[in-house]
Amino acid sequence: MLGAALSTSAGVVLADAAQDAIEYRRAVFQLVKWNFAPMGDMVKGKTEFDAERFEVLAQRLAALSEMPLEGFSVEGSDKGDTKARAEIWSQWDDFAAGMQQFEKNAQELASVASSGDLEQIKPAFAAVGKTCKGCHDNFKDK
Amino acid sequence: MLGAALSTSAGVVLADAAQDAIEYRRAVFQLVKWNFAPMGDMVKGKTEFDAERFEVLAQRLAALSEMPLEGFSVEGSDKGDTKARAEIWSQWDDFAAGMQQFEKNAQELASVASSGDLEQIKPAFAAVGKTCKGCHDNFKDK
Repeated sequence: MLGAALSTSAGVVLADAAQDAIEYRRAVFQLVKWNFAPMGDMVKGKTEFDAERFEVLAQRLAALSEMPLEGFSVEGSDKGDTKARAEIWSQWDDFAAGMQQFEKNAQELASVASSGDLEQIKPAFAAVGKTCKGCHDNFKDK
Repeated sequence: MLGAALSTSAGVVLADAAQDAIEYRRAVFQLVKWNFAPMGDMVKGKTEFDAERFEVLAQRLAALSEMPLEGFSVEGSDKGDTKARAEIWSQWDDFAAGMQQFEKNAQELASVASSGDLEQIKPAFAAVGKTCKGCHDNFKDK
């Protein structure tokens, strides 16, 4: 009886940690979107290019880019209210490599953004977008 | 009729932007918590002090600390599903000063964390916690 109670309690703790990890991942990607979208508007000419603001957004994106991966490392976080596909865990090395590429490209964008030169920024921004899309296509439910 | 339709449409856009801002703020604070809590556990001796991990968490907190304020600057984001009190906007200068103090203290913590010296870290961590509490007490509903 005690054993059953303990394992139930441990299960609840695990489920809480998994739910926290899912919410953490979602929060990270929400901030990624908040910062990425206005950069996209500037790159596409939908809004005026503001070099100073772009640099802030790009620096934030670089800081955020190393955060998601640990949220997928929490046991049990493949279940629950998440659009994360099982392939993340069955193809972990590919997934982790994609995340590391995202980080590398976001850091490169932040570096290029400090130049304030939109023509240099455009390909660096596109490279970040490509890593986003690659992961979404392969590892995220619609 | 056209005027009414246009103003309704603008109202919907405004409401969307306000809701986005509320969710952005919540996401920022969720990441603040994710990184702050394990630092607290180390400072209090609940978990073993890991200088390298602590530095990563402190650097993230410093990066996050400049993000919340712009989420409160979006028109209409005082209404809706938020625990933000009206005092944020009626006492904006005090609120903004508190946020800037949080940013300053978080940057100081990141700087001290690079020393790896827990005795230097403790007061810097406490100073960050104090700015969190100050804002929560004055500007956040329970």
